Amino acid sequence: MAHKTTYAYRVEPQYVDFTLRATVPALGGQILNTAGVDAHNKGFGVDVLNPRGMSWVLSRFAMEFDSLPAQYTPFDITTWVNECTALLTTRNFTLTDTCGHEFGRSVSQWCLIDIAARRPISLSTIDQFNDDYITAEPSPCDKPHKLTAIEGEELLRHAVAYNDIDFNCHVNTMRYIDLMFDTLPLDMFRGDYRVRLDIHFLRESRYGQTLVVYGCEQDGGHLFEIRTTDGTICCRAAISFVR
Amino acid sequence: MAHKTTYAYRVEPQYVDFTLRATVPALGGQILNTAGVDAHNKGFGVDVLNPRGMSWVLSRFAMEFDSLPAQYTPFDITTWVNECTALLTTRNFTLTDTCGHEFGRSVSQWCLIDIAARRPISLSTIDQFNDDYITAEPSPCDKPHKLTAIEGEELLRHAVAYNDIDFNCHVNTMRYIDLMFDTLPLDMFRGDYRVRLDIHFLRESRYGQTLVVYGCEQDGGHLFEIRTTDGTICCRAAISFVR
Repeated sequence: MAHKTTYAYRVEPQYVDFTLRATVPALGGQILNTAGVDAHNKGFGVDVLNPRGMSWVLSRFAMEFDSLPAQYTPFDITTWVNECTALLTTRNFTLTDTCGHEFGRSVSQWCLIDIAARRPISLSTIDQFNDDYITAEPSPCDKPHKLTAIEGEELLRHAVAYNDIDFNCHVNTMRYIDLMFDTLPLDMFRGDYRVRLDIHFLRESRYGQTLVVYGCEQDGGHLFEIRTTDGTICCRAAISFVR
Repeated sequence: MAHKTTYAYRVEPQYVDFTLRATVPALGGQILNTAGVDAHNKGFGVDVLNPRGMSWVLSRFAMEFDSLPAQYTPFDITTWVNECTALLTTRNFTLTDTCGHEFGRSVSQWCLIDIAARRPISLSTIDQFNDDYITAEPSPCDKPHKLTAIEGEELLRHAVAYNDIDFNCHVNTMRYIDLMFDTLPLDMFRGDYRVRLDIHFLRESRYGQTLVVYGCEQDGGHLFEIRTTDGTICCRAAISFVR
């Protein structure tokens, strides 16, 4: 049986918005980096998998924040894996301040893929990933919600460029979230609010393609779909602000 | 007489490009964060100046890198101020690996501005900024080179959005550099190269405006000008790669 592991961070100046508080995309980036470092430390990181022709791909991701920490504030991210089915593993996170007060939480679901075929393969393929790495602690919030197709209007177009891509020349996960936040009016970010984001990744996009962000409002939330110009749906997301 | 001060960093996953090495924009961000933290630690940071209606504004900036460190590599940034005229102060940086080998260097020139008037004011206005804070060590490379107007073609358009702006709703310095790098072909970043960037900031741009990146090649270098759609020039830059 594995244990939860905690990593220390600080809200660096490049992670804050015009209110001088961490952005949701920036905290999301730190959450995903924590996943990478924790997998590496426990022997099932991409450094071990890539030479075997495999990699982790984020399938679904949810984040909730009760508040957003100010610039230079130290905080901790605690992470644990609590589920592993044939094709999906669930990794959880809580974010706490230095007094131990939890201000955010996240649930992520990952596939193992064959890099050459870009297809999911069974998690049983990797011996390292067995019960020794599962922590029998419940997820700290709802798993990523179900998201269906939307009839949104076009909000933003972005040609995939140098700063957007990973080592496979695919768009970095967090850049999709950046683009959605870039369509929201600044007034959404003033004052105090709680926020939840759910996102499903459906298809990868790559250098040379142009992304189009479609969006609409429904039941007080903001729904998004990002497609390439040929109509392929890359991801769907919902962002809700509660005041 | 002041001394040089050194700050420790690591190449985090969000700082690397598709070659898994730190990007020039990301290292530039860390250099500017170091300037902010060092000014704060020495008593003349924006935390002290803003309540007095003043702030630092970056006027000119040059960076040189002999190589770019790989993901997760620790490195140090050493900084010192070596000049202070009536309206400009010069802050220097060297970047070294953990063996002390210097792989990068930078010179930045800053104005003190009156925030309400958005105009430069004399550096003698702040008592904290006197000879006690000057280190009599030469700059580690050429100061930012002179940059003149260019006749470039339009390469990229970008509507200023949530992720681009600082607490004044002005575009963050590093976002201009991101946009220039986004116009360069990926082949520029493959293999080993040395790179130098010079940039002059002329006018601020803000939320609601659209930026247009113009560029041309001259004497083996890439020259850029970023203007708002009303023709105001925000900055000029030159980037040269040497193989």
